[in-house]
Amino acid sequence: MVKLIDDERLDYLLAEDLRIIQSPTVFSFSIDAVLLAKFAYMPIQKGRILDLCTGNGVIPLLLSTRTKGNIIGVEIQERLFEMAVRSVKYNHLEQQLEVIHGDLKEMPKQLGHGQFDVVTCNPPYFSTLKQDEINLNEHLAIARHEILCTLEDVVKACSQLVRQGGKVALVHRPGRLIEILELMRKYGVEPKRIQFVFPKQGKEANTLLIEGIKGGQPDLKILPPLFVYNESNEYTDEVKKILYGEKEERSPITESHGDKK
Amino acid sequence: MVKLIDDERLDYLLAEDLRIIQSPTVFSFSIDAVLLAKFAYMPIQKGRILDLCTGNGVIPLLLSTRTKGNIIGVEIQERLFEMAVRSVKYNHLEQQLEVIHGDLKEMPKQLGHGQFDVVTCNPPYFSTLKQDEINLNEHLAIARHEILCTLEDVVKACSQLVRQGGKVALVHRPGRLIEILELMRKYGVEPKRIQFVFPKQGKEANTLLIEGIKGGQPDLKILPPLFVYNESNEYTDEVKKILYGEKEERSPITESHGDKK
Repeated sequence: MVKLIDDERLDYLLAEDLRIIQSPTVFSFSIDAVLLAKFAYMPIQKGRILDLCTGNGVIPLLLSTRTKGNIIGVEIQERLFEMAVRSVKYNHLEQQLEVIHGDLKEMPKQLGHGQFDVVTCNPPYFSTLKQDEINLNEHLAIARHEILCTLEDVVKACSQLVRQGGKVALVHRPGRLIEILELMRKYGVEPKRIQFVFPKQGKEANTLLIEGIKGGQPDLKILPPLFVYNESNEYTDEVKKILYGEKEERSPITESHGDKK
Repeated sequence: MVKLIDDERLDYLLAEDLRIIQSPTVFSFSIDAVLLAKFAYMPIQKGRILDLCTGNGVIPLLLSTRTKGNIIGVEIQERLFEMAVRSVKYNHLEQQLEVIHGDLKEMPKQLGHGQFDVVTCNPPYFSTLKQDEINLNEHLAIARHEILCTLEDVVKACSQLVRQGGKVALVHRPGRLIEILELMRKYGVEPKRIQFVFPKQGKEANTLLIEGIKGGQPDLKILPPLFVYNESNEYTDEVKKILYGEKEERSPITESHGDKK
C-alpha cells in the first residue's frame, strides 16, 4: 500500500514494472525526463549516479532499470521530495535509490567533489517569470522556472559533482544551446553528444539532449534526430519504444490507474 | 564558346539554365555549396551579397537565381578565380556577378566595412594537414584545409564585411560547431538558425549549416533536419528538389556534358 495525498495518482512508469506517484497540480513528469533517462550513458554493473532537480524521482526510477549502480536524486521542494521517497518505497528500490531533500548548490559540499560517474539533470527551462505565474502555483513555477537555481548553478554543480572522465547529461530547450555549451566549457565539461528532438517532421527542434565529459577532448557528435509524433499525430515507433519498451500493449504513461495493490 | 583548360568540363548547374566549369583535379563543387546557396537568406529584389572562398563560383552562380541583387565572389587561388570568371561570362552574368582574385583577410580594407547585406562562405573544413597531402595537389589542399585562412579568419572577415543587421551564412562540419558559435559571438554575429544535414536516417550529422545576424539578439532555432540519401541510397525528395529543382528529367549535377554550344 502507498499513501496518496490530495490529487496524487499512482501512474505506470513505462514498460518497466514501476509505478510513480504524480499529481497534476504539484508535479507530473514530462517526456523530456524519459528521453534524458534513455539518452544518458549508464554504467551497467556498478557506479554512482546522481540526478539533480529530480522532482518526483522519475529519472532515478527509470535509470534503476538500466544500471545496477547506486543512484541518488536531489530535490529542493519538500512536497516533491516526499512523493519521490514514497515512489522509491513503493517500488522496493530503497537499496539502490536514495532521495535527498536539498539544494543542488549545496551538494558538492554535502556529497563531495568528483564522487559521481554520471550526473543527470532536467532543470527548469525558463529564465523569465511573470509574478502571476509564481502566485498561481509555486510547485510548478519552481520546477519550470529558474527561481531557485539558474542554468549556471546547474552546470557548475554538475561539474563539481562528477569525477574526471565522468559524464554530465542534460535536457533543455534548443534556444539555450549556446549558453549551455559556453557554461559546460566554462566548468570543464566538454560537450560530446547532442541529440535534437523534433515534435514532428518539418518542425523546428523543441528539445535538446546533451552529454559532456568532465575534462574530455573536443569531439562533438550530432546524433540522429528524434521525432516525437508522426504525420498522424501518434508517437513515432522510436518514441513508443522509449516510452513503452518493446511491449505494445502497455497503457499510455499519462493514464491514471490509481493504486491497484 | 568557352575555353576549357586541361581536364575541365562544362557541367550543368542544377535545374537552373546555368553551366559551370569544373575540373576533378583542380576544383569541383560539393553538395555542401549547393545546400548553403539554398539555406542562406537572400534579398529578392536588391542587395549586396558577398561569397568568400568562392572556388569556381558555384555559390554566386546559384545565388544569382535567387536574387536580383549584386553578387561578389572572392577566391584566393588564381586558377579557380579564372574558372569562375569564365563561368560568369559563359552564363552572361557579368552585370550581376563579379569575381575578385584576392585574400579574404584583405577584403574589409579593399571592399569596405559593413557594406554587404549577406556574406556566405563554404570555407576549408580541415584544420590539420599532412605534408604529403599538400604535395599531392595544392589546389585541392588549399580548398579543403586551413592553409591560407583559419576558421577565425573567415568568421572575422564575414563579420567585418557584413552590415549591422545583415546575415552571415556558413557551411561546415558539426565537429566545429562549438568553435563556430564561439567565434561568431566573439565577432558580434549572433547565431540564429542552424540546420544539420544527415547522410541518411540513423546516422550522425556530417554537415552543419549556420546563419547569424550581425548585432542580433540571442534566439537560436534548430531547423528540421535534412537527410541526403534515403534507405535505397538515392537522394531524398527534399535533396533532389534542392539539386534539380522541380524538374525531374535533369541530369545529375556531376555528369560531364562538355561544351555543346
